[in-house]
Amino acid sequence: MRLSNRLSHVPASPIRKLVPFAQAAKKEGVHVYHLNIGDPDIKTPEVMIDVLRKWDKNPIPYSPSQGELIFLDALKTYYHRVGYSFIEEKHIQVTTGGSEAIAMAFFSICNPDDEVIVFDPLYANYNSFAVREGVTLVPVMTKLETGFHLPKRQDIEKKITKKTRAILISNPNNPTGTAYTKKEMDMLVDIVKKYNLFILSDEVYREFVYDGKSHVSLLLYMKDIPMQAILLDSLSKRYSLCGARLGCIVSLNEELMSGVLRIAQGRLASGYIDQMMASKLTEVPSSYTKNVQIEYQKRRDVLFAQLSTIEGVILPPKPEGAFYAIVGLPVADAEDFCRFLLTEYRDNNETVMLAPASGFYATPNCGRNEVRIAYVLNCESIKRSVEIIKKALEAYTKLCHSER
Amino acid sequence: MRLSNRLSHVPASPIRKLVPFAQAAKKEGVHVYHLNIGDPDIKTPEVMIDVLRKWDKNPIPYSPSQGELIFLDALKTYYHRVGYSFIEEKHIQVTTGGSEAIAMAFFSICNPDDEVIVFDPLYANYNSFAVREGVTLVPVMTKLETGFHLPKRQDIEKKITKKTRAILISNPNNPTGTAYTKKEMDMLVDIVKKYNLFILSDEVYREFVYDGKSHVSLLLYMKDIPMQAILLDSLSKRYSLCGARLGCIVSLNEELMSGVLRIAQGRLASGYIDQMMASKLTEVPSSYTKNVQIEYQKRRDVLFAQLSTIEGVILPPKPEGAFYAIVGLPVADAEDFCRFLLTEYRDNNETVMLAPASGFYATPNCGRNEVRIAYVLNCESIKRSVEIIKKALEAYTKLCHSER
Repeated sequence: MRLSNRLSHVPASPIRKLVPFAQAAKKEGVHVYHLNIGDPDIKTPEVMIDVLRKWDKNPIPYSPSQGELIFLDALKTYYHRVGYSFIEEKHIQVTTGGSEAIAMAFFSICNPDDEVIVFDPLYANYNSFAVREGVTLVPVMTKLETGFHLPKRQDIEKKITKKTRAILISNPNNPTGTAYTKKEMDMLVDIVKKYNLFILSDEVYREFVYDGKSHVSLLLYMKDIPMQAILLDSLSKRYSLCGARLGCIVSLNEELMSGVLRIAQGRLASGYIDQMMASKLTEVPSSYTKNVQIEYQKRRDVLFAQLSTIEGVILPPKPEGAFYAIVGLPVADAEDFCRFLLTEYRDNNETVMLAPASGFYATPNCGRNEVRIAYVLNCESIKRSVEIIKKALEAYTKLCHSER
Repeated sequence: MRLSNRLSHVPASPIRKLVPFAQAAKKEGVHVYHLNIGDPDIKTPEVMIDVLRKWDKNPIPYSPSQGELIFLDALKTYYHRVGYSFIEEKHIQVTTGGSEAIAMAFFSICNPDDEVIVFDPLYANYNSFAVREGVTLVPVMTKLETGFHLPKRQDIEKKITKKTRAILISNPNNPTGTAYTKKEMDMLVDIVKKYNLFILSDEVYREFVYDGKSHVSLLLYMKDIPMQAILLDSLSKRYSLCGARLGCIVSLNEELMSGVLRIAQGRLASGYIDQMMASKLTEVPSSYTKNVQIEYQKRRDVLFAQLSTIEGVILPPKPEGAFYAIVGLPVADAEDFCRFLLTEYRDNNETVMLAPASGFYATPNCGRNEVRIAYVLNCESIKRSVEIIKKALEAYTKLCHSER
């Protein structure tokens, strides 16, 4: 039976495709340090977990398609607190993870084969959603040496065609950790004004900006370009709620939001329990966010200090935000090295899982010697992980020189 | 800013588009009986709710993209218990509701503009997913007089073109309650064999078949047509878990399942808490299902007995399954009557919400005088609801004869 052509174009996730090897290692009793996936070990706020423990609603009903009223209200309060008091419930559509927000946005603003400008390396699943929604991603390259900051304006403008519908950024960036400056954001907003494009900003890591820097959100520009600005958001990282599958689309464009609501009605609703739990976000103390920020900054510093001791590792300038880094390794094929870590290498019965970076590029044949490292484990685990990576690189190099 | 053309083709849900009117009525203090949506008042099994009350996992992590292992195992056990012991974990992909199962299946088997044969009236959201996934639904009409059972074989075959990729059924049917006979299923399977098509069977209401009849599942044919048979399933109705957003795709077609897993990786995972809760399905006593079945059969009988007392109401033969009925009303525009119920009519400060049926047809201009009634409330509430409908029809008819 012939399946669809488009199905064959859906890429396997570079973050998850090596999972079967990790599972096999674990079955053998090997401890695997997971630096491949942004699934933090930081605790979810207790006030949220308490919602589960005190559960008294039975049956578990559908939510309204736009979102539970109490959760929409909590999200509104959140945006007010971070400084954007013009956001009302009607500007918010609850989505099943940031993932669904991306999918809905692509569908809503692009006809099949329309183009969206992205910056390479990019969040790998943008590739997947582009195939799913029939959108062509047009990558603009950014460079490790410059901390993956945006290139010159003309490098972006020359990619704009009649089919271009939007510019999409992740800020702070997954997989690079780059937090765009005010100047960079000004430039992007100026470009979308000039060419009448949408700008999609995926700000899942909004709170995770380090060294006292502050985040430049698209929300800052939303009233200036109300028809063009679309915020994509998620609670997964902010409150360690990855498994809760909750995000949202925020826009002042009423026609867009009413179309997005019709899409949302088709899939009925996001999870009721997750929404009831996450509604408690208004009761999470600001110290929680502050402490999480301090902790990730510490982890980043440990990661970079340790990696800099490995010969041949190519480090970018320290990333300003999120909890990822793209790092060059002294290997020809980083995916093969990642597989080697999971299937062959053990140090004291432990190993490390990394995400090969090639899947984080929309441009073919890039990032072959790079990996994405998620510093989502505590400092001790990060130290130990880098120690394993160091030893494994030595073993791998020897192996490559001999039989491979 | 121009949005996509396809966005304008996404229909509003006939089940949910009148929700703002219902909310307004409730704000006025009016009690609304919800017969518009399949959101049952039957309790979720306590053994599932207990998972929440005893929650000790923190943080809330991502699940594997295919599904939590414990949940996949529970689903496998379920299919074994209902008689299909050839189902293994690898044949199952956990989805975020039956909704996502439909979307993934459409994408996987259809190129843009490929055709899927459906039977009118149909589950309204098939229309929505067809637009989302670029699929053309080709409806074959079924009739109220014959209980919406399938038409003659040639009426189906004449709709098959070079672009036809599949036949999609909902069995037992939403919105008609029809449970297809062995003869009907044999015919469909024979057609898909002859024309080399996929067959998609949405069996969300598998357990809800009444009067001692038994359900004829696509699973019965799965080993005969392993490359062509795709089961779409959901836990929402079976365990009153609508808000938990859990379903699955089941198929023996390995190439399909590996493609579906790549799609699943793109959206990361279904909800962790929901899956952990639903994993307890293996501990739900069989008496739960039996009692639910008895209760719905009673409600159906009450609904039909009461409706038959209203002059001008056109009833189909009593549906064999699910908890819906398509019913003709003595009005020209059932949607206008549904709006009238919510915005104007009150009896002792109560009213009823129904779903206008026109949105449940893929054929334009059908079902204008019909509504879908979901008998998801207890018998007393159903009796009271029908009493309100009866009085409202009288008031509405008077109004139509005078000013409207």
